[in-house]
Amino acid sequence: MNCPKTARIQEKNSQDLIKSLKKVCHAELASLNEVILTHLEQRIPQIAEVAKHLILAGGKRLRPLLALACYRALDCTPNNETSFKMVELAASIEFIHNATLLHDDVVDDSPTRRGRPTANALWGNKPSILVGDFLFAKAFELMLGANEKRVLPILAKVCQTITEGEVFQLAYLKTFDLDDTILLRIIGSKTASLFAASCEIGAALLGESEETQKGLHHFGYNLGVTFQIIDDLLDYIGDTVSLGKKVGDDLREGKVTLPLHIAYQKSHDGDKRLLEDIIKRSGSNTSDFDTVISILHKSGAVEESYTRAWHYANEAVKGLSPLKNSSIKNILENLGASFIVRDN
Amino acid sequence: MNCPKTARIQEKNSQDLIKSLKKVCHAELASLNEVILTHLEQRIPQIAEVAKHLILAGGKRLRPLLALACYRALDCTPNNETSFKMVELAASIEFIHNATLLHDDVVDDSPTRRGRPTANALWGNKPSILVGDFLFAKAFELMLGANEKRVLPILAKVCQTITEGEVFQLAYLKTFDLDDTILLRIIGSKTASLFAASCEIGAALLGESEETQKGLHHFGYNLGVTFQIIDDLLDYIGDTVSLGKKVGDDLREGKVTLPLHIAYQKSHDGDKRLLEDIIKRSGSNTSDFDTVISILHKSGAVEESYTRAWHYANEAVKGLSPLKNSSIKNILENLGASFIVRDN
Repeated sequence: MNCPKTARIQEKNSQDLIKSLKKVCHAELASLNEVILTHLEQRIPQIAEVAKHLILAGGKRLRPLLALACYRALDCTPNNETSFKMVELAASIEFIHNATLLHDDVVDDSPTRRGRPTANALWGNKPSILVGDFLFAKAFELMLGANEKRVLPILAKVCQTITEGEVFQLAYLKTFDLDDTILLRIIGSKTASLFAASCEIGAALLGESEETQKGLHHFGYNLGVTFQIIDDLLDYIGDTVSLGKKVGDDLREGKVTLPLHIAYQKSHDGDKRLLEDIIKRSGSNTSDFDTVISILHKSGAVEESYTRAWHYANEAVKGLSPLKNSSIKNILENLGASFIVRDN
Repeated sequence: MNCPKTARIQEKNSQDLIKSLKKVCHAELASLNEVILTHLEQRIPQIAEVAKHLILAGGKRLRPLLALACYRALDCTPNNETSFKMVELAASIEFIHNATLLHDDVVDDSPTRRGRPTANALWGNKPSILVGDFLFAKAFELMLGANEKRVLPILAKVCQTITEGEVFQLAYLKTFDLDDTILLRIIGSKTASLFAASCEIGAALLGESEETQKGLHHFGYNLGVTFQIIDDLLDYIGDTVSLGKKVGDDLREGKVTLPLHIAYQKSHDGDKRLLEDIIKRSGSNTSDFDTVISILHKSGAVEESYTRAWHYANEAVKGLSPLKNSSIKNILENLGASFIVRDN
């Protein structure tokens, strides 16, 4: 079915673009909410409490939204059996994402997320680990409900890939002995893989051509890399209130992200030693943090990070070429750019 | 295909019976090992290291063995496509089980398992959580490989049920304010559900009658309850060397298991106060432990636990009635009883 063509969307602001996407997908998002709530109504009250604390905390629902939007860019027929399957798959993606967040917050010992105390801060690590497992299991159940042969392997694979990325990152804590390839592998596995899966499953569900599915995978993957580079940058130069989490988390956890790696590469020996010392101590005082921010700026790492993010945002757009023109395609084309100017 | 009938198996010893089962299923077990090893060969060395540490540590592989044995009790045709699917499903079950063990050991802060330090003791909690997630994802991939509509929902559901049981148990730590129903729900969810799923998936895969599948579910469930009651008892009266883990873990973790609950119910007020005090403190010194063991014996709780275990072992056998007579059926019939006289 051809989707309505509209005037080119002008908003470059991420929040406005996401609002536009939400408007286009409002029917599916309403179903998504219902599916999520139904699956969180639990016989075990503590599971519902912990899961709802995170999932209903006002996260952006970016990944299921991308999944629904990419699906709608291919087929605008509302409320048929396939669109309901798509909603279940989108819910499955949101559950996978939130399961990884619950476990990440334990692994990283994070105190806040989405502007609220984390589940591990409120209830301890045990419920977070177990409810994370529960959400993975729920995600499996939801995928199986859709039971589509082309979709299931994508989602099964992505769960592995995310975990591989997390474990891989553990091996590179507190060291500058890494390179672009390693960092892109971490970003690719941890973040971009789920963006890619989200964007391509609609095409897989609809039985679209391999070219279309691969294109949407490429779009999602590069959009995910863009998103993560900016996320890593905002962890230094962002604002706690806008982000809903503390800045400086990566430094405290000893994570050398792309901006910090670039700063190290571009710095003279004196600053290199300073950065090494701070990351080894997982420096968390204000003075350490200010030192790193100052080096990020003066080395040109902030600018270079933006340049890299633009590269991936432009690359993402190429993946959309198999799609027919539509208002949704237009929004998707601008999404990467909007991530770069976002502040949360 | 009719399976060979042999003379009635006489061994009542658990290890001998399991050896007999392994002999009957040796071809499938060899394939199982290959599948497990192939799926543990990882691009990320730390994942392979942590996963192999646990999975190759000489665990009994009881659940996949039960799965293969129940399958073979229904169909003895070796090396066909279905039997290979069954091996993949059995590997999936072993991965689910080991994922829950990795997470359990973090949740319980356990120092040893299968006679060796736990993964969390060796490498810390982070790799254990993440590699547990990885094994769940691998389990899911393996299930999808078999892609059987009657099997997948059983395995998706059981992952949820296990986690529900774990979370439910957290709500009842350090308290005697519980009853038989609550304890059986915990045992049923945490342990018996995976035994039940293991035993019934072969019937589901082969498209056997609902009666047969339900029978094998009943067998597995009751066998699992038997196993867990004895496991809980051995945590007090067992031997560290035979068990491969420390005795007294449950008491240290503040878990009121069935034997302790029975002891509390059967004790006079003085001993009740003693038990309450010890469980509140999660008493872990030798004197506390000896006090509890003494109360377990004098209250008759040890005997009563054995009586209950026998009840479930006998109940398990009823589930096997739809099966034709065979040497495997004969072994399975004796398995519950052998669990009761086991020492590890």
